[in-house]
Amino acid sequence: MLQIALDAMGADNGVEPVVCGLLQALQNKNFKAYLVGDTALLKSSLDSKRLSSDILQRIELLHADDYVRMEEKASDANKRTTTSIYHAIGLVKSGDASACVSAGHSGATMSLATLQIGRIKGVSRPAICTCMPTITNRCSIILDAGANTDCKPEYLVDFALMGFHYAKHVLHYELPRVGLLSNGEEDSKGNDLTKQTFKLLSEYDFFKGNVEGSDIFNGSVDVIVCDGFMGNLVLKASEGAASSISTILKAEIKKSIISSLGYLLAKTAFKALKKKVDYAEYGGAPLLGIKKPVIISHGKSNARAMECAIYQAIEACDSKICDKITEAFQSIATIK
Amino acid sequence: MLQIALDAMGADNGVEPVVCGLLQALQNKNFKAYLVGDTALLKSSLDSKRLSSDILQRIELLHADDYVRMEEKASDANKRTTTSIYHAIGLVKSGDASACVSAGHSGATMSLATLQIGRIKGVSRPAICTCMPTITNRCSIILDAGANTDCKPEYLVDFALMGFHYAKHVLHYELPRVGLLSNGEEDSKGNDLTKQTFKLLSEYDFFKGNVEGSDIFNGSVDVIVCDGFMGNLVLKASEGAASSISTILKAEIKKSIISSLGYLLAKTAFKALKKKVDYAEYGGAPLLGIKKPVIISHGKSNARAMECAIYQAIEACDSKICDKITEAFQSIATIK
Repeated sequence: MLQIALDAMGADNGVEPVVCGLLQALQNKNFKAYLVGDTALLKSSLDSKRLSSDILQRIELLHADDYVRMEEKASDANKRTTTSIYHAIGLVKSGDASACVSAGHSGATMSLATLQIGRIKGVSRPAICTCMPTITNRCSIILDAGANTDCKPEYLVDFALMGFHYAKHVLHYELPRVGLLSNGEEDSKGNDLTKQTFKLLSEYDFFKGNVEGSDIFNGSVDVIVCDGFMGNLVLKASEGAASSISTILKAEIKKSIISSLGYLLAKTAFKALKKKVDYAEYGGAPLLGIKKPVIISHGKSNARAMECAIYQAIEACDSKICDKITEAFQSIATIK
Repeated sequence: MLQIALDAMGADNGVEPVVCGLLQALQNKNFKAYLVGDTALLKSSLDSKRLSSDILQRIELLHADDYVRMEEKASDANKRTTTSIYHAIGLVKSGDASACVSAGHSGATMSLATLQIGRIKGVSRPAICTCMPTITNRCSIILDAGANTDCKPEYLVDFALMGFHYAKHVLHYELPRVGLLSNGEEDSKGNDLTKQTFKLLSEYDFFKGNVEGSDIFNGSVDVIVCDGFMGNLVLKASEGAASSISTILKAEIKKSIISSLGYLLAKTAFKALKKKVDYAEYGGAPLLGIKKPVIISHGKSNARAMECAIYQAIEACDSKICDKITEAFQSIATIK
């Protein structure tokens, strides 16, 4: 049976969303979970719920004395051997678990994943890969969404390759199209980094050229490549735009009884929109380029987001995405 | 009477939005316009409308044989002396007009503004300054919104100074707060460029530290500083997010008669939202750092956007923003 290591500590809203998300996932999928953290806390959370013996049998509590706080430095994570994320990553390293999920300190998770589990040979830098809703019936992925602030062109080429294989093997897109995030669609557009990257990517059939910020949501490509600084900016700006629109619209609706009534009648449509753009439905973000699947979840994840992040971990294992990326980089090395 | 040079050519939808926007502005404000372009086209557009003699007297048509096409290189603009934008900028250079507005090729406008009118002494690079709606009752400005793709830290400091003075003298914000666009709010966050810029900006009282993509819309600062590449990315990503939300919601509403009815009842609220986030209401984007006011409008501008861009030109003249920026950079030079 597939075994997943779940870091239960360090998320914004404590262990409850992690435990609830896990229980929901255990009901729908057949796997075993190592739940790593303060076992007293975790036991009390589990005890407060009615659980079947089948589910209880598939949870193993593992105690960790400590966890990485949000204000701590990621670079210290490897020295802090008593933390929950250190244990959870350790389970993957030893082979006891096949994948790891954490909503704790993302820098610490990245650092430990790289140092303990290790990078796939040939991958210059691991990248955070985030799923985005589009107006079409398939999502797009953007990478790097925040792991590497300053990048070289070769890193972005690696991100493109990893994104292509993720879209192909995990999302099952037949011929994934890859675009390079830039300030215009024309080939000549870009800054120093993207212009150099453009040249390197032009050798690949999957490369469809430059795309703009608005292309993230229109489905014109499947994979959008950028450095982690840009990725962070566009994701947060998009979230900000969406949340501001919602705030302004709500305030305007509240101003009149007729508008409020209209909103109630149209509520099904609003709910459908919310589900489509809700980050929770997309789970976490896989850290691509690591030898084993590691899923980084938002610190503010609710139970549904944790549940979906666990499904991502299972899909990453089932699709053997890490092996596919390893093979892809091996064959490049052979060609070179 | 204030005189504005209006480049009538090269916009996506021809001369009509320019002419209609101008006529509306002439009804509301007392100024004279030089309307530069294909006079046959412009005369026929004006003839098709009923105009009072007061308005007609305040329009002077000036013929230009040619205009810069969107696919042309900005760097060729200075050689093409028969274009409408060359004439319009020339009117400002000669002092016949006090400001220029164009919805044509923005690169050509920037290039001619810099080469013909000239940079303010001490300003390293002119920047495009764009107004953004926020959830508060005042807008925020972001610069550079696209003029300079690769920037040095000193350029960003100049953008901060120009943005501060624009917010103070044109938007009339008492003590404008300036933020640096980065991948996290903590002082330690950033890429090489923003980390170096952070140090330089720390000397200024108006500097409130790093801000994230989502801060563009929440009003936590008034001025957001970034390089033109990032500015372009976050603006287009935000536009994309907003337009996708609208597309998805419309499709969901259409699925049911009850939702459609609800939408009709709530229409006032949707209209108010649309007005608040409509780019047209914010007009164009001033090119700050040039000795005279130059307003760059979206190629797709409608009449309302052109009208608002003309108001921006008038406000730029009335507020003497170029003089204020000149004085600010003079006093820095004196301190140094």
